[in-house]
Amino acid sequence: MTASAVEPQRIRFDAPLALSSGASISDYELVYETYGEPNADGSNAVLVCHALNASHHVAGVSSLDPDDIGWWDNMVGPGKPVDTRRFFVIGVNNLGSCFGSTGPMSINPATGKPYGPDFPVVTVEDWVHSQARLADRLGIDRFAAVMGGSLGGMQALAWSTLYPERLRHCVAIASAPRLSAQNIAFNEVARRAILTDPEFHGGRFYDHGVVPSRGLQVARMIGHITYLSDDSMAEKFGRALRDNAERAQPGDYRFTFDVEFEIESYLRYQGEKFARYFDANTYLLITRALDYFDPARHAGGDLSQVLGKAHAAFLIASFTTDWRFAPERSREIVQALLKAGRRVSYAEINAPHGHDAFLLEDPQYHAIIRSYFERIAAECAAGGDRE
Amino acid sequence: MTASAVEPQRIRFDAPLALSSGASISDYELVYETYGEPNADGSNAVLVCHALNASHHVAGVSSLDPDDIGWWDNMVGPGKPVDTRRFFVIGVNNLGSCFGSTGPMSINPATGKPYGPDFPVVTVEDWVHSQARLADRLGIDRFAAVMGGSLGGMQALAWSTLYPERLRHCVAIASAPRLSAQNIAFNEVARRAILTDPEFHGGRFYDHGVVPSRGLQVARMIGHITYLSDDSMAEKFGRALRDNAERAQPGDYRFTFDVEFEIESYLRYQGEKFARYFDANTYLLITRALDYFDPARHAGGDLSQVLGKAHAAFLIASFTTDWRFAPERSREIVQALLKAGRRVSYAEINAPHGHDAFLLEDPQYHAIIRSYFERIAAECAAGGDRE
Repeated sequence: MTASAVEPQRIRFDAPLALSSGASISDYELVYETYGEPNADGSNAVLVCHALNASHHVAGVSSLDPDDIGWWDNMVGPGKPVDTRRFFVIGVNNLGSCFGSTGPMSINPATGKPYGPDFPVVTVEDWVHSQARLADRLGIDRFAAVMGGSLGGMQALAWSTLYPERLRHCVAIASAPRLSAQNIAFNEVARRAILTDPEFHGGRFYDHGVVPSRGLQVARMIGHITYLSDDSMAEKFGRALRDNAERAQPGDYRFTFDVEFEIESYLRYQGEKFARYFDANTYLLITRALDYFDPARHAGGDLSQVLGKAHAAFLIASFTTDWRFAPERSREIVQALLKAGRRVSYAEINAPHGHDAFLLEDPQYHAIIRSYFERIAAECAAGGDRE
Repeated sequence: MTASAVEPQRIRFDAPLALSSGASISDYELVYETYGEPNADGSNAVLVCHALNASHHVAGVSSLDPDDIGWWDNMVGPGKPVDTRRFFVIGVNNLGSCFGSTGPMSINPATGKPYGPDFPVVTVEDWVHSQARLADRLGIDRFAAVMGGSLGGMQALAWSTLYPERLRHCVAIASAPRLSAQNIAFNEVARRAILTDPEFHGGRFYDHGVVPSRGLQVARMIGHITYLSDDSMAEKFGRALRDNAERAQPGDYRFTFDVEFEIESYLRYQGEKFARYFDANTYLLITRALDYFDPARHAGGDLSQVLGKAHAAFLIASFTTDWRFAPERSREIVQALLKAGRRVSYAEINAPHGHDAFLLEDPQYHAIIRSYFERIAAECAAGGDRE
């Protein structure tokens, strides 16, 4: 069962928001959606933070497009693990993204033209502060939970230390306390593909009526490889040839650099689709926010010292075949939380789909999230804090 | 100790070579180098096959450039694991490569212009046939060993089944019996980066006086990530910032898409260096040869049936942290050889450097190769075949 059509909403913020970089942004908008209803004391609100290419449209059918189902619709909705008959769920598009909130494609009031490369570099912490302002406007003092997968999980972690009083639970799935050199390396290759595309025009491609689609395609193809496990790719595609039945002899190679294998066709399709809807400047900004996330860096690398500021209880989950943010990365968070004396549950889920598993409907995974949120709902019903 | 300056040599072949694709090539040249001296009965010859971006210049100092040390100089030379005081070693640049043998940069006699995209797609098997012709011309009936790492190991494997009588030992290091979907995916992204570079000009960039250097850079950066292990990248670069000492506060971010982390600087440097010396058409050809290699595909996927044709004894070696061609891939070869009743030694070497380990001087690794070649030398001294 999927919730009925969801209307995106929009709030404008006039007061300048000071950013990690030292810059600030004023007069910006955030687009968000809500699912379910707030309870009397507002204790049932859940904030869902999105990852690289997702948006505020978390669940249900968009009122703008009946084919546009939310990116976490299997997780959030009536009767689903995060049950919107009990919880008031909020999805928000992050500052700098390209799905309606103010970002590089928006008009810069100072110039009357799109911000493009002049949009300030934003960090995970900046997003959290902007989300806190949104919560203020919606009258939410304290979230029952802040949750997310991957980069969304990093935002949930940052919430727990920046606004310790404002969330009772922090749910970080398939996440990491910081990127590794290899993670940064993949981001950097993707950025180079975009930055060196002649149609990028230093980020001012909007003025030229073009899109650096070749760079975006390559960036997305690289991303896709890191989202899938080696095994799931082998199972789904293996070495199967494209249009094999149409070949003179099945299994014959065509000896060309055009599509030969199914995996090539899949990656090209994903790359081309992405280049049609995603903004190149946003891709740079969001991968940089990933690179920069490192909450322990001002604590001499001691993550437990930072997480010791948190008051929330934590659910940390990882997937065995995720090699982008492998279980070890989640275990590092868990160990720091334990060292800091925080309440933490940890699930290492045996799932074949790599990093993408956090978006998929795995029974074991969903059962864990469901029972965790049932516990939260019971707390809400019992009148809140039992920490 | 490094051998004295080595002079590359060149042989022209007039007779057409039939290729796997159905095309043929005539009037081509192969460039090669030799190290050490052939013994009286020619039983001490070793062929070293190269991987993607290497060449015939395996060992020693090139007579053309005193700074140009062979790519496997730590392995091949007087007193080295493949000891050129005992063995007559041959390195050959593969057809389609860009270091002197006929390839896309060579003049197509049919047009008087560089072949470019008209150079035929070549396979591992085509290379082996061309190397066999070179052996004929050098008077080598039977190699003491054919050896290589990565794609070079695939050539050694193909030798063992295409010319079973012509090698006594087959040494395949950090190799695989076929690419996985993930391996093909990485190759495809690299090819897309090149093919979509506007300066590629459909492969005829020579005529335009340009080089698709942006595509080559991205391709090389992707390659580099797959050659290194996650751990070795973490150890070598971690999250270290570039020019950290010059920053206002050490550890401060600059909030830019320019180089921020050391790993970014390293990858850009590697990409730019590669784009200056490597040919884009060759990159396409060699990655495609990798994709296409699959000796079991005409045997219903039964590798043991194919390897059962071999007469050689095998040394298969892999490295624990190699995630490009992981130990499982080598074990698959070993199992097929055992099933086929072949003589095989297998070494799984505990080394931190990922796929690149096959090029590095690891004591355990080199000790294994050394003792294997000492055994081969003893066989040669004893008069050859003891199979």
